[in-house]
Amino acid sequence: MRTITWDDEKQTLQMIDQRLLPRVFKINTYEDPQEIANAIQSMVVRGAPAIGAAAAYGMALASIHSEASTVESIKNALNYAAEILKASRPTAVNLSWAVDMMASAIDDYSGSPQNLRKVLIDKAKQIAEDDVVINQKMASYGAALIEDGDYILHHCNTGALATVDWGTALGVIRMAHEQGKAIHVYVDETRPRLQGMRLTSWELEQYGISYDIITDNSAGYLMRQGLVQKVFFGADRVVANGDVANKIGTYMLSLAAYDNGVPAYCVAPTSTIDLCLERGDQIPIEEREGKEILDLMLMGQNAAPEQASAKNFAFDITPHRLISGWVTELGVIRPPFNKNYHTLLESQSVA
Amino acid sequence: MRTITWDDEKQTLQMIDQRLLPRVFKINTYEDPQEIANAIQSMVVRGAPAIGAAAAYGMALASIHSEASTVESIKNALNYAAEILKASRPTAVNLSWAVDMMASAIDDYSGSPQNLRKVLIDKAKQIAEDDVVINQKMASYGAALIEDGDYILHHCNTGALATVDWGTALGVIRMAHEQGKAIHVYVDETRPRLQGMRLTSWELEQYGISYDIITDNSAGYLMRQGLVQKVFFGADRVVANGDVANKIGTYMLSLAAYDNGVPAYCVAPTSTIDLCLERGDQIPIEEREGKEILDLMLMGQNAAPEQASAKNFAFDITPHRLISGWVTELGVIRPPFNKNYHTLLESQSVA
Repeated sequence: MRTITWDDEKQTLQMIDQRLLPRVFKINTYEDPQEIANAIQSMVVRGAPAIGAAAAYGMALASIHSEASTVESIKNALNYAAEILKASRPTAVNLSWAVDMMASAIDDYSGSPQNLRKVLIDKAKQIAEDDVVINQKMASYGAALIEDGDYILHHCNTGALATVDWGTALGVIRMAHEQGKAIHVYVDETRPRLQGMRLTSWELEQYGISYDIITDNSAGYLMRQGLVQKVFFGADRVVANGDVANKIGTYMLSLAAYDNGVPAYCVAPTSTIDLCLERGDQIPIEEREGKEILDLMLMGQNAAPEQASAKNFAFDITPHRLISGWVTELGVIRPPFNKNYHTLLESQSVA
Repeated sequence: MRTITWDDEKQTLQMIDQRLLPRVFKINTYEDPQEIANAIQSMVVRGAPAIGAAAAYGMALASIHSEASTVESIKNALNYAAEILKASRPTAVNLSWAVDMMASAIDDYSGSPQNLRKVLIDKAKQIAEDDVVINQKMASYGAALIEDGDYILHHCNTGALATVDWGTALGVIRMAHEQGKAIHVYVDETRPRLQGMRLTSWELEQYGISYDIITDNSAGYLMRQGLVQKVFFGADRVVANGDVANKIGTYMLSLAAYDNGVPAYCVAPTSTIDLCLERGDQIPIEEREGKEILDLMLMGQNAAPEQASAKNFAFDITPHRLISGWVTELGVIRPPFNKNYHTLLESQSVA
């Protein structure tokens, strides 16, 4: 079962409801872009590549379930869908990347309305399929960085659940495991939404990879004790100088890695790279409801006072100086990011 | 109501059950040292100064409820109590400091068994009273570091609940508030036991100080945004070079403060200083059950897979290079710690 599946017969999108994992496995069905936008906003589906693919299908659904009967009116429905999908979450650039890919597919379209719908479904499928292929390429490049016996610290969830399938940073770890390397994963819980504790540990159990959950704030102590050989995380946006917006906590984790000489790798497809922005502090950072932090019970007790308030930033910025390498589907980019990314692009276009 | 109260009539110790806060306020009664050791271990009472005072009363209780009828046999009962109390938690040095203070009170004792019991109760009361006086002295020195309008980040709970009364780092913040300074506190939740979310926010509400709860892993992002002017935390042990053992997360928080030029202050009485150890990595760090991390519900859902395992270090070591100053009851010590601590001691003994 993939995180995101298109039902050709019913012309609907099916997605695992990630709010309920790890104890409840439930598939939800979606029929229109507003439902998809809501699912992205409420984190039924999360992870930069996964929300990109979901949004692509959201665009396809806009054309299918639109009352519009002309190509022009379908295009209008798509424009409207693009707006609500892009507004659902601001930080991951894959979301607008995927929506723009879908929009560009119809720019010069001149066929029938019915065929336009098929073009859009095919394009969304292609984005989804490409994601899996790209993830496996990244996994091969990244797995070469992992040695037999490594203890690896992983942040948030970047596995199959964060993508269409396979995963980014967790896909690297999975590949190393499949290559027969003996590895152990420290899963940081990733407050507030606990994607590490809830989702990454669940995935690691499926793959048969040994792990321990740790609190986010203990990563530094483990490193000081020499218990961690590598750190892997994903990205929601990588900008021109190599700064990374990723799930809140990545910055402090990378600081701790840097302070202890532990290499920290960012794993993200090139669709996550946004060369329009020069530095990380230009990336919009989503602020979410305090309820996500406060609605918590520890050992059967309510954890927060009833009237408590909370500040809930969903992402942070990790400066490029703390990152040892960026793993992409084109290869591993070492610092300086911008220069070596362009060198890599050129070498690929020559090849 | 104090965190720890001696009942003269019933000859019992009363303590707030801190496992149940903030929604349930309950006082437990203790009659013997084993019960006190259990309460310390299970974190009914926590915070280095508070467990020191609780252990002192535990020693007094050992003499009161001992069947022993001779001074010698009471001393044996005390030796046994000292062992179980010291073993209850390994990291905070105040615990063994208080137990040793109690033991030294009877070294040269030559009176009646009944009077010995009174000597011990009086000594425990003195340790408890001294704690409050010392905290208020620290608060005065520390509050001078806080400016009107400061946004202060605070780790764990170091308030009245972590002491007999008033508090250490939170006592500093409380004093600044009572001096009329307009301050706002970012309360980091302090996983896994959530002492920030559960206890510090509860205390701040009592004092009328404005606050927001944040996740531990977001402290760095707040600092990058310029939202934090100072960081305050307590200590479970400060060693000769100024390294600090404190609640897990202090190291990563201090790293983030250092990386952003935000001053980070450790507030702890001199009873927390352990000059027998040269460096922080010599401090024993308690490892606790994974259950404390895993028994968690987020928005009504179980957060961890049923079979998940977790690594749960209760404290970490913050290297002295990351600390801007140590606030003690004798004054604020700036780096280098050891040299300036001894200069301060000499100036006090001259005075």
